[in-house]
Amino acid sequence: MMSRVITISREFGSGGREIGYRLAQKLGIPFYDKEIITIAAEDSNIAEEVFRANDEIIHIEKKEKSHHFSPYSSLYEIPVSDQTFFAQSKILKQLAGKGPCVIVGRCSDVILEDSFDIFICASMKAKIKRLMALEPDMTESALKSQIKEIDEKRRDYYQFYTGNVWGRPQNYDICLNSDRVGIEQCVEFVANLVYER
Amino acid sequence: MMSRVITISREFGSGGREIGYRLAQKLGIPFYDKEIITIAAEDSNIAEEVFRANDEIIHIEKKEKSHHFSPYSSLYEIPVSDQTFFAQSKILKQLAGKGPCVIVGRCSDVILEDSFDIFICASMKAKIKRLMALEPDMTESALKSQIKEIDEKRRDYYQFYTGNVWGRPQNYDICLNSDRVGIEQCVEFVANLVYER
Repeated sequence: MMSRVITISREFGSGGREIGYRLAQKLGIPFYDKEIITIAAEDSNIAEEVFRANDEIIHIEKKEKSHHFSPYSSLYEIPVSDQTFFAQSKILKQLAGKGPCVIVGRCSDVILEDSFDIFICASMKAKIKRLMALEPDMTESALKSQIKEIDEKRRDYYQFYTGNVWGRPQNYDICLNSDRVGIEQCVEFVANLVYER
Repeated sequence: MMSRVITISREFGSGGREIGYRLAQKLGIPFYDKEIITIAAEDSNIAEEVFRANDEIIHIEKKEKSHHFSPYSSLYEIPVSDQTFFAQSKILKQLAGKGPCVIVGRCSDVILEDSFDIFICASMKAKIKRLMALEPDMTESALKSQIKEIDEKRRDYYQFYTGNVWGRPQNYDICLNSDRVGIEQCVEFVANLVYER
């Protein structure tokens, strides 16, 4: 069993979270997704609601600005969204330092060194079908809009903080199309690779 | 063992061809790369040299034109590069019809229905290192230019004939970064998945 942290980047509705959760269970290692926010809020003096409002979201007015900071700028000059990013990054490094685990999103593939990075995608049709089972009251077109909107936010957030293009296969160890490969096979597939290394 | 054809799309220098070859050997199934050209030349009245000159290349003057043809256009009106594309496509379908095999490039992931589609990429550094071992007389910068040029041609060719974006994870079942995962592990990884299905 390899001693590396596994990061999961995922399109909204692709089942990436489920794959990560089942993989962590199979490997008997901790799983972190929204839990990161709670831990970071407890560790910082920022409210959990503020973390939620900035979770993988870059607000439009920030998009154009640089993500480089002067080392002399005071905490008061740093936008709250950057404060939550840095507080989360600190927690990600602490969690990774404790040993193997599965971490979902939040630029963890770039923040953590030597992590095994996975990107999960799926066809729009499959993502809508998956979400419809969870949100039966939403129409197909409303779900499509929601998928596009959330993925655009994730893409912007990733680009803003890492300078990389979200979902480009060169950024990850592997990309899996959950729709074609199947959720169960994705879990098996990665677990096999992980056991073999 | 699944009875599907495996297609390999690959960045130049990523080791995709080697992964495909070793995978075919491991699974005991045929492997087709340049062989497709020879078979297509034998099957058509087009010389093998013409196939080679148009192999995964769209010549610049064609880029802007549509890839849709009128059903009434005669063979004489179809550019030779389209003739080689269609002749190759026919052979790809014939080979796939015979049973499981590994096919490299030539838009096979789109031409063949129900194929298991893999994209192999790697970092520029790793691709240069790999090619340097094969072409010790070439400089690093010459190899970098060659990699960019060949991949641009493959991208254009794929876009022209399929309308899809080359190397976009949503097009494939899986994408593997051979540099991070390792050539041997890529082979094992896919073989495990294939055996399990």
